[in-house]
Amino acid sequence: MRTIISLILLFFSVFGRSQELNKVRLYCQSNQSEILQSFSEFLEIPNIASDNININRNAAWIVKYMESNHIKNVQLLTSITPNQPPVVYGEVSVPGAVQTIVFYAHYDGQPVDSTKWFKGLHPFTPKLFSNSIENGGVQQNWPSKGLSIDPECRIYARGASDDKAGVMAIINGYSSLFVNSILPKVNIKFFFEGEEERGSGHLEEILSKYKSLLKSDIWVICDGPVHQSGKKQVVFGVRGDTHLELTVFGPKRPLHSGHYGNWAPNPGMELSKLISSMKNDSGYVTIKGFYDDVIPLTPSEIKALSLVPSVDEQMKKELGFKKSEILSPLNNTLNLPSLNINGIESASVGKLSANVIPTKAVASIDLRLVVGNDWKRQQNKVIEHVKSQGFYVTENIPTDEERARYEKICMISRSDGYNAQKTSLDNLIAKRVAKAVQLTTGESPILMPTLGGSLPLYVFEKVLNTNPITVPIANHDNNQHAENENIKLKNFWDGIAMFASIMMLPK
Amino acid sequence: MRTIISLILLFFSVFGRSQELNKVRLYCQSNQSEILQSFSEFLEIPNIASDNININRNAAWIVKYMESNHIKNVQLLTSITPNQPPVVYGEVSVPGAVQTIVFYAHYDGQPVDSTKWFKGLHPFTPKLFSNSIENGGVQQNWPSKGLSIDPECRIYARGASDDKAGVMAIINGYSSLFVNSILPKVNIKFFFEGEEERGSGHLEEILSKYKSLLKSDIWVICDGPVHQSGKKQVVFGVRGDTHLELTVFGPKRPLHSGHYGNWAPNPGMELSKLISSMKNDSGYVTIKGFYDDVIPLTPSEIKALSLVPSVDEQMKKELGFKKSEILSPLNNTLNLPSLNINGIESASVGKLSANVIPTKAVASIDLRLVVGNDWKRQQNKVIEHVKSQGFYVTENIPTDEERARYEKICMISRSDGYNAQKTSLDNLIAKRVAKAVQLTTGESPILMPTLGGSLPLYVFEKVLNTNPITVPIANHDNNQHAENENIKLKNFWDGIAMFASIMMLPK
Repeated sequence: MRTIISLILLFFSVFGRSQELNKVRLYCQSNQSEILQSFSEFLEIPNIASDNININRNAAWIVKYMESNHIKNVQLLTSITPNQPPVVYGEVSVPGAVQTIVFYAHYDGQPVDSTKWFKGLHPFTPKLFSNSIENGGVQQNWPSKGLSIDPECRIYARGASDDKAGVMAIINGYSSLFVNSILPKVNIKFFFEGEEERGSGHLEEILSKYKSLLKSDIWVICDGPVHQSGKKQVVFGVRGDTHLELTVFGPKRPLHSGHYGNWAPNPGMELSKLISSMKNDSGYVTIKGFYDDVIPLTPSEIKALSLVPSVDEQMKKELGFKKSEILSPLNNTLNLPSLNINGIESASVGKLSANVIPTKAVASIDLRLVVGNDWKRQQNKVIEHVKSQGFYVTENIPTDEERARYEKICMISRSDGYNAQKTSLDNLIAKRVAKAVQLTTGESPILMPTLGGSLPLYVFEKVLNTNPITVPIANHDNNQHAENENIKLKNFWDGIAMFASIMMLPK
Repeated sequence: MRTIISLILLFFSVFGRSQELNKVRLYCQSNQSEILQSFSEFLEIPNIASDNININRNAAWIVKYMESNHIKNVQLLTSITPNQPPVVYGEVSVPGAVQTIVFYAHYDGQPVDSTKWFKGLHPFTPKLFSNSIENGGVQQNWPSKGLSIDPECRIYARGASDDKAGVMAIINGYSSLFVNSILPKVNIKFFFEGEEERGSGHLEEILSKYKSLLKSDIWVICDGPVHQSGKKQVVFGVRGDTHLELTVFGPKRPLHSGHYGNWAPNPGMELSKLISSMKNDSGYVTIKGFYDDVIPLTPSEIKALSLVPSVDEQMKKELGFKKSEILSPLNNTLNLPSLNINGIESASVGKLSANVIPTKAVASIDLRLVVGNDWKRQQNKVIEHVKSQGFYVTENIPTDEERARYEKICMISRSDGYNAQKTSLDNLIAKRVAKAVQLTTGESPILMPTLGGSLPLYVFEKVLNTNPITVPIANHDNNQHAENENIKLKNFWDGIAMFASIMMLPK
């Protein structure tokens, strides 16, 4: 009997929820032109974390937009260190609600090299295309008021998917409930960070300073792409991240490659040897102890991974390569720490190439971490490896004395970093968030133990003792971090519905 | 008795020569401001070989300057291929002279990246400094008429040493004889090339077309630096030169290094492994057969090399490194073929670095050749090596089919090139040129079997069946091919005297 009553209650709850979500969808449909116009206005403001003036313009824009979308107590949260990108905060208190969710996204973006974007595109001049440019998309006018637009269209701009789309989807998720007079089931807090792409160096300061303001039951993070299969996913963890920049030195001035070639040491060759010493031909890192700290996956994580649809063959075809770096399924390799060469530079190639022995060669290295790794310890392993290859390691440009004393010199700059984080797949409130996502599509989302990408979630755990989970919305082929970043409109509209549904948290 | 008469004759000849050379020196001293003003005017004309308009402006300037310096039959020699940089030609016939020397220099320069020049310098705005900038030199005014200027001063500009200094020194060498009514002992031809730094792709066409006009007994080439010891040198050979550009491919679009790091192949890592497979830790090239074609040095070349003063320790100190690439004296290593990494590029480093797996990595490779090497065969050895490392080699951007079929793909672009050349140290007229150089300084010049740098001299040998030798004038620390190129005035004035002395060829 109790089961029958439960089933009847569930039916009405799902039916009621479906009615509410229809209203949310209708809100998006009726306000397409206004929402996209605001989104475009937002994307026009450059958002590199080091660009103080424009970062503050972004923050001011978000404040205004939140206030016009009925969010209360909107304010900037600043770190103790002065002149750092502020967090934009706001909240909605729901009478009778006993739980609180903080919604997180970030408004800063990765550095841009605008010369690399497709002809006619500029990172901070958002443009609408009928499809991805690779699939033959052509430029569209922004929709006039009341006109609907094909959800296959994409917006191209830095931040279009990573992560201004998150900011826009969360705010509009709430707004779509508000205008339909639907009351959220939880208290809501909004937290939009401004230096995620620079390593979130002041996040910990801010979380500590505003600890009581930020009290909550769970953080829901909007960042990253949905699964490559197109399925929605709820992600229970992220890899950590840190960087090193390695500079190997040649002669003090660029030398004629004829008059000195064979005799003067070439920094490009030395750097190549150093880099190639870091991985074996099976794609595994050969640096001593690199995988030592890794905490193995739990049985429930292993089971969850086995349920993730394989996209390996699809992705290899789409990305144009035959063999993966590590011969293992994509999802397994994301549960290992990684070492990736983000960039290399020594003198010039192509038309600017000259017959020189360059003075230096530089490599930018990205280290992703899994639970168990410590970012400083992981950096140290790489630095010890460089030393083991016969290099004298310094943090500064070598002096004449150092040049005279050491055969091989490598200057290493450490960046900040943060560790990986994972929330248990059995976390109760996280399971309810997953259910809310399911209600927007009708199918179970993928429950992903960890995202390959990184977010400073371990800082939330450390300072606030909370368990964040991630609900990504962007299309997987969004070119985030690179040239031609874009968001597919369908993903954006779905994202608004998902966040509205989470705010209506089911039991 | 015969010996005594010879000695008396020799005394008068040397004494007479010394009188004449004094007049040449005096000419330079009295006309410093006018000569430097013309030099500066010449350096202001940009001289990148691909810049047709300015190359023609350079050629027109030289024509005018030669004519105003009493040189006859001045004309442009053009290749059959249209719109290529012309050679500027002129001549002086000497009544009774039975031998002819062609003097060669080139007026084009290496590509420039003006952002890399010292602050306040621009490659085509020549400036005078009291010394090298590294040694604390400060900017000077150009000298007024009649005022002398410290010979330690340097002119900074692209082409200042390589090789507009050669053009200026040769023309003024003749002019200094003419105004002093000193008759040269040989017929003189002037040959100023305009595409040497681009690989002299049309030199062979021009030499063939004007074969009879260019008939001579020897070519004297003015290019490259004097010996690092500061001693003058006469060089009997040059290395050959050619290039390859290697592009290794990663995913078709730049990928987020978190979401794909460990799984998507990284072209920077693959290129590093490829490059590092090309040399062992002793600096020798490991490519199969790389040294096979080398024709060993002759006993007289080995002897000549043993007489060259060692500058190895001095140069290591000056250039700031402890250990040479190949553990052998500089002059020995220049008698081997070389493989030098001129530049590497994959995505970005420093402030522009982003968290991506790049789509490609590019290396620009310079191959220097010695006698016995053939430039196309040497390129082929490198290409075979790339294949032996598991790469599929193509000349074009890989198609989707190729990407699906091959695990590792390398696109290789070949540039043009030319072989090495050597003239015998026992060549009689070359010995007389060396003697002429000796007369300007009083000390024997270094007789260098080969220059580390390259000039297309084998083309002269091939087409005209002539033996060129090289008489460099530039200071060794002239930054040729790079930013902050410069010529020390002392070297320039000495150069004028040397060419005047060679035109007065002693017996």
